[in-house]
Amino acid sequence: MAVEIVYRSSRDPEQLFMDKAEADRHDKMLELAETLSVVLQAGVPDLSERHAEEVSIYMARHRDIFAKAFKSTPEALQALTEPATE
Amino acid sequence: MAVEIVYRSSRDPEQLFMDKAEADRHDKMLELAETLSVVLQAGVPDLSERHAEEVSIYMARHRDIFAKAFKSTPEALQALTEPATE
Repeated sequence: MAVEIVYRSSRDPEQLFMDKAEADRHDKMLELAETLSVVLQAGVPDLSERHAEEVSIYMARHRDIFAKAFKSTPEALQALTEPATE
Repeated sequence: MAVEIVYRSSRDPEQLFMDKAEADRHDKMLELAETLSVVLQAGVPDLSERHAEEVSIYMARHRDIFAKAFKSTPEALQALTEPATE
């Protein structure tokens, strides 16, 4: 037995990481998802909190692809619906 | 009476524009929204088609702000919930 360091995001204390960079990425993803969720609920009034959160987490997990799509290249999103591509 | 040129996006034939650049912007917005809607319905299985479309149109209308948020700056989204800012 030994003491060891684990990392977690305060936004999701259940999820522990051995790697600090991974914990950082998880925290950034959740930060974006939380902000998205607030904005989508405000902008699309009859969207439920649960749907807003699911959509937001999904997009935040694929942040780079959505960044490209919004910036200039909607076709970038095809990477998400073509199973062969990753 | 005279003949005049009006412009429209084939994605939304009801909406006519006197200005070609405006029609182009409308078409680009709808193109992004359509692609987003397909991806969100695939990625968030219990999201209804109507909700996927509403979320997608909302985000496509504010494309520049979402581009910033996904790229690096989630706080950019605050511009959408602070009524004074536009």
